[in-house]
Amino acid sequence: MDQSIVLINAKIYAENQIISDGFIKIDGMKIEEIGWMTHYKANDQFYVIDLQGQTVIPGMIDIHTHGTSGADVMDAEIASLETIVRALPQEGTTSFLATTMTQSDENISNALKNAASFIKNHQKPGQSEVLGVHLEGPFVNPRMAGAQPVDFIIEPEIPLFEKWQKLAGGTIKLVTLAPEQKGGMELTRYLNENEIVVSIGHSNATFAEVKMAIGAGASQVTHLFNQMKGLHHREPGVVGAALLLEELYAELIVDGIHICPEMIQLAYQNKKSEKLILITDSMRAKCLKNGNYDLGGQKVIVKDGMAVLENGTLAGSVLKLSDALKNMLKYCDDCTLEDVIKMTATNPAKQLQISDRKGSIKAGMDADLVVLNNDYDVLMTFCRGILSYQKESSMVD
Amino acid sequence: MDQSIVLINAKIYAENQIISDGFIKIDGMKIEEIGWMTHYKANDQFYVIDLQGQTVIPGMIDIHTHGTSGADVMDAEIASLETIVRALPQEGTTSFLATTMTQSDENISNALKNAASFIKNHQKPGQSEVLGVHLEGPFVNPRMAGAQPVDFIIEPEIPLFEKWQKLAGGTIKLVTLAPEQKGGMELTRYLNENEIVVSIGHSNATFAEVKMAIGAGASQVTHLFNQMKGLHHREPGVVGAALLLEELYAELIVDGIHICPEMIQLAYQNKKSEKLILITDSMRAKCLKNGNYDLGGQKVIVKDGMAVLENGTLAGSVLKLSDALKNMLKYCDDCTLEDVIKMTATNPAKQLQISDRKGSIKAGMDADLVVLNNDYDVLMTFCRGILSYQKESSMVD
Repeated sequence: MDQSIVLINAKIYAENQIISDGFIKIDGMKIEEIGWMTHYKANDQFYVIDLQGQTVIPGMIDIHTHGTSGADVMDAEIASLETIVRALPQEGTTSFLATTMTQSDENISNALKNAASFIKNHQKPGQSEVLGVHLEGPFVNPRMAGAQPVDFIIEPEIPLFEKWQKLAGGTIKLVTLAPEQKGGMELTRYLNENEIVVSIGHSNATFAEVKMAIGAGASQVTHLFNQMKGLHHREPGVVGAALLLEELYAELIVDGIHICPEMIQLAYQNKKSEKLILITDSMRAKCLKNGNYDLGGQKVIVKDGMAVLENGTLAGSVLKLSDALKNMLKYCDDCTLEDVIKMTATNPAKQLQISDRKGSIKAGMDADLVVLNNDYDVLMTFCRGILSYQKESSMVD
Repeated sequence: MDQSIVLINAKIYAENQIISDGFIKIDGMKIEEIGWMTHYKANDQFYVIDLQGQTVIPGMIDIHTHGTSGADVMDAEIASLETIVRALPQEGTTSFLATTMTQSDENISNALKNAASFIKNHQKPGQSEVLGVHLEGPFVNPRMAGAQPVDFIIEPEIPLFEKWQKLAGGTIKLVTLAPEQKGGMELTRYLNENEIVVSIGHSNATFAEVKMAIGAGASQVTHLFNQMKGLHHREPGVVGAALLLEELYAELIVDGIHICPEMIQLAYQNKKSEKLILITDSMRAKCLKNGNYDLGGQKVIVKDGMAVLENGTLAGSVLKLSDALKNMLKYCDDCTLEDVIKMTATNPAKQLQISDRKGSIKAGMDADLVVLNNDYDVLMTFCRGILSYQKESSMVD
């Protein structure tokens, strides 16, 4: 549609303010104007969507998802990424990092080439945008492998990373690694110099090693609490460092399965909304039925919202980011929708240095918008100006 | 001395205010008046101590100490308690709970009878006041015994407690127990009904069991982090409960040995000064030389500020409360002397329901006062109006 779209009668969670009764004018892929309904001027040239008081939040950014709806980034197929970018808007995810996992050089290379090709040739508005790649492993600690196949875990290595980044066309934006492994600090420093986010994960680092990694440029931990050195009163580990050190953002899987609700409260009590990033860590089985699926060559059994390897190890999730948002509000009494927006949009945009175009609602930003009802169900999702998902029963005037 | 004492030119950390240049008039065992020097009227009847700008804080209350200077509460001798009450003022401790440990019924009974006799017949101003008994064990969890001898650990039992409380002349004020043990919830409820503080310690309780114990009346955890179920992301344990639940006070051993400084920061970040209580958990070797000592029939090796059993398990401390105060200020940038006063005086007084006479500086309170220099060294300690300790080099005008 070449017509401008305008959303009216919306409760807008805009940057720095809540407009309780406002409008958002979209021009092409961008937000052209936002304001109060009292300043709204109707115009026949607009395609008007009356939201009748529903809530609009910034499109959510999932910096850690492996797949959904049968597709996985490691499939290394354009069709898989097509499936993912079409499926994510239904959970309000308007952009994301395609996340790889620990595999052979060949498999990782193929996934990276495929992602680069997709980003270059297949990306378009109206789909969840691939912002780049999150390389999870293989530079992790075998003692904290979790669902990362141990056989393919290797020591951090700059030349190999450089090769991969070249294959990826420079699209690797975030790397999960274990800085305590041989070469870990060097790779951390290299990545930081190249403006790639370093997230400490699948790591057995001591508190001192985490501090050293921060000195080298690490700024995040991957799925806080899961697969990292736990808290001990004489060795705070990665968990203690994440809770204590404000230099670190922390990814959090808020499905109530990876971490119990009380531990989510504890994370929130310590990190506050300023330093948490909600992620899904979802795998291909999301949005599919219970059954057996593949994850990096391993059998994963999915049942009742849980995905586990045959030995019982949690293997990613089937969590939707929209459910993470709901859970966060449910688990933490003192957490507001404004807080959750920081954790699903503002903070990931900051980490990826794209706050100039994503992560908040104001004129000039990408028109990545999610409409929620009072139960926080996703009613509509706009990906760069195009209505990409609409809940069946939701009204459009 | 029958003369009234007046401390002048003092920086007074009084209740709800800091009097930067003030006086404290002591009449007998009580504080008669406090005020600014501008309102001070000299009087020949006063014995004047000019503090020349030094700081006065409320006398510190140690709710968990087993002994010092060669003496232990379990010695069950009047002479041992005499030693303790004379030694503690040098570290600014003006009152305390005589803390027993896991032992045979006979040994515990003797220690309790002795404490009761001491409190009734030997207590006097000018010494650190025995506020009552802290019964640590034997109702704990053998899996979290630490230095509590496992052979004497028994299941919580109301009739046995009643017998002990009778022998103690009603002086047991606080009990450390493991509520998850058979009979633990019942004893917790009984103690709470009898206004005895229940502190969860040497405990392997789950988060749910801690919540249940709080429902039954538990209001504290014993030496946070040490000998309690640790934090796991799907089972927060006693540690998680202590950090999360504001119903719970937490004892903290701030010697930098039992808990590393970062974990003390984490405790402070979560519990704040309102819910922490600094304790020493000190044993007889405090103030003595390195060497071998006895703790509940076990050999304890003391070296360089550390007390350990032969198997390496930490066995109490040789910490002075005045050093805990210094460490707290050193480890936590955002912790002020006012905060530490809450943790060493206000909070323990609240827990023991003696805030009407101890824990703060104002007219009508016990004249339990500690004079500190700018390095927080204890220069003088007044126990109920009598100068009980004076640092050799400190000046008195």
